Amino acid sequence: MNESGLINKLTADLLADETVIAGPGDDCAVLELYGQKLLFKTDAIVEGVHFDSEAPPEQIGHKALARPLSDVAAMGGTPSHALITLGINTSIKENYIEAVYTGVKNCAVQYGVNIVGGETTTLPCFTLSVSLLGKVKNPIMRTGSNIGDAIFVSGELGGSIVEHHLNFIPRIAESQWLADSFNIHAMIDLSDGLASDLRHLLNTHTGAEILASALPIRRAARENAQANPSSKTALLAALTDGEDYELLFTVSSKDAVNVMDEWNKHFPDTSLKCIGKIIDRPGIHLRDENGTKPLALHGYDHLQKS
Amino acid sequence: MNESGLINKLTADLLADETVIAGPGDDCAVLELYGQKLLFKTDAIVEGVHFDSEAPPEQIGHKALARPLSDVAAMGGTPSHALITLGINTSIKENYIEAVYTGVKNCAVQYGVNIVGGETTTLPCFTLSVSLLGKVKNPIMRTGSNIGDAIFVSGELGGSIVEHHLNFIPRIAESQWLADSFNIHAMIDLSDGLASDLRHLLNTHTGAEILASALPIRRAARENAQANPSSKTALLAALTDGEDYELLFTVSSKDAVNVMDEWNKHFPDTSLKCIGKIIDRPGIHLRDENGTKPLALHGYDHLQKS
Repeated sequence: MNESGLINKLTADLLADETVIAGPGDDCAVLELYGQKLLFKTDAIVEGVHFDSEAPPEQIGHKALARPLSDVAAMGGTPSHALITLGINTSIKENYIEAVYTGVKNCAVQYGVNIVGGETTTLPCFTLSVSLLGKVKNPIMRTGSNIGDAIFVSGELGGSIVEHHLNFIPRIAESQWLADSFNIHAMIDLSDGLASDLRHLLNTHTGAEILASALPIRRAARENAQANPSSKTALLAALTDGEDYELLFTVSSKDAVNVMDEWNKHFPDTSLKCIGKIIDRPGIHLRDENGTKPLALHGYDHLQKS
Repeated sequence: MNESGLINKLTADLLADETVIAGPGDDCAVLELYGQKLLFKTDAIVEGVHFDSEAPPEQIGHKALARPLSDVAAMGGTPSHALITLGINTSIKENYIEAVYTGVKNCAVQYGVNIVGGETTTLPCFTLSVSLLGKVKNPIMRTGSNIGDAIFVSGELGGSIVEHHLNFIPRIAESQWLADSFNIHAMIDLSDGLASDLRHLLNTHTGAEILASALPIRRAARENAQANPSSKTALLAALTDGEDYELLFTVSSKDAVNVMDEWNKHFPDTSLKCIGKIIDRPGIHLRDENGTKPLALHGYDHLQKS
């Protein structure tokens, strides 16, 4: 059984009282306390899985906090308070731990997050786990897209392993502006790759048509594809590489032009692309100069270089 | 540097806005959101450190949640929502993970906690990390004790390793009743042992005088001392064994008799003992039939069998 299968099984019969607006299954849990809505999220990064020992320690700290910040952004929320759990052991130098923590603190200051505690525990590999609280007025769920919606993605996709996965900017400001300015139907942050994460915005009756030529491909993905002809194409990288931490959202088609125009005024340095639309045919369908083909979960079936 | 030294160094210069009532240093962080107070806590248990592979999996799950519940109790709060992070790997059987999670869920139902999500991550040793939110009206801090206060402890102390550390009852009900009924000056839950944790209720100008004969010693500690004459005495076990998860609190001496009388009416099955008083001499001083002696941090200097 894979991770999501196990989680689904474990959390299938959870009890929830009226304070739980959304439990497992979205970017954050949504709670109602004292008549107001809160976001609640936890996320861990582990050496050897999410970063390697050569990564600059401040960037490791940045990544640890920026990841759940990206989840709060995906709900249209404002992060507020964090607890930091460090899994450490005696082989890890103290000045290294301090440098990592400095990265966490700098990121916290940048996004107005109060670090209010945490703990250290003994673990064989260096681990940072972040618990994050945020405020939200109208949480944007993954499930609100409608047939005909325009699909937008911020920033650029693919090739994040070169450096983006360590120093990415969580789209807090953009997300808050979107939530305040438009009726965003559904939103998610891209952590597992577009071809995988987009499916969370669909249901059994809806699909997505994606225009290959509209996909914003990060330069690192293009350069990597050029330098390594045996690796995946830049297009496949943009569809399937993980850790983009960009916003993927849908709005009514009538709002699409307005969203694009206003975005370009407010965030002229950050790309926003309309990459396709929600359709009534289940699955993801990629349209290019050769026509439209269904896209398998990770894109491999139809897009691998052969 | 030890754990608390490292944490103090890392968290020394944290920024905090007006929503942070209490950051690092108490049993939970205390936040003010929407004009109401929240408790925020994270706690992890690791195989080989907090439990071994022979422990019943449901009890491991119970312990993982009950530990931060005990911290919420120590503030006089009501736990409400939890996120569960599982550190797992392919060597851990799925039905074992499910049994552990069942223990978490049963504990959550018992104490009215909504489990609202979490994640799994890859770790070499089985780990459970719990993030917990709670509500509180008037948080009881560690720092409020006054000279002359009576010192109380719930339950019994020592020998928790036999089974108590896995199946203990977090003192949520007792703590809420105390907070609602009396002016509790300071409170903490006992996780590192009385001789260590009591110091958190003192400052550089105050100390505690503890009456050895008043200490409630758990039967397991007595039996262990009898069975193993070379091990620590039952009294030393009660002072220094960790993981009691009992409440240690102080009240004004004028309230002491009332607290005891009312407790016995409300919780006739749970011991409450007045074990001493706050004094104006720094440090912990143990009084027995031979007089009064200062107690070293872990009690070893003066209490070891020799």
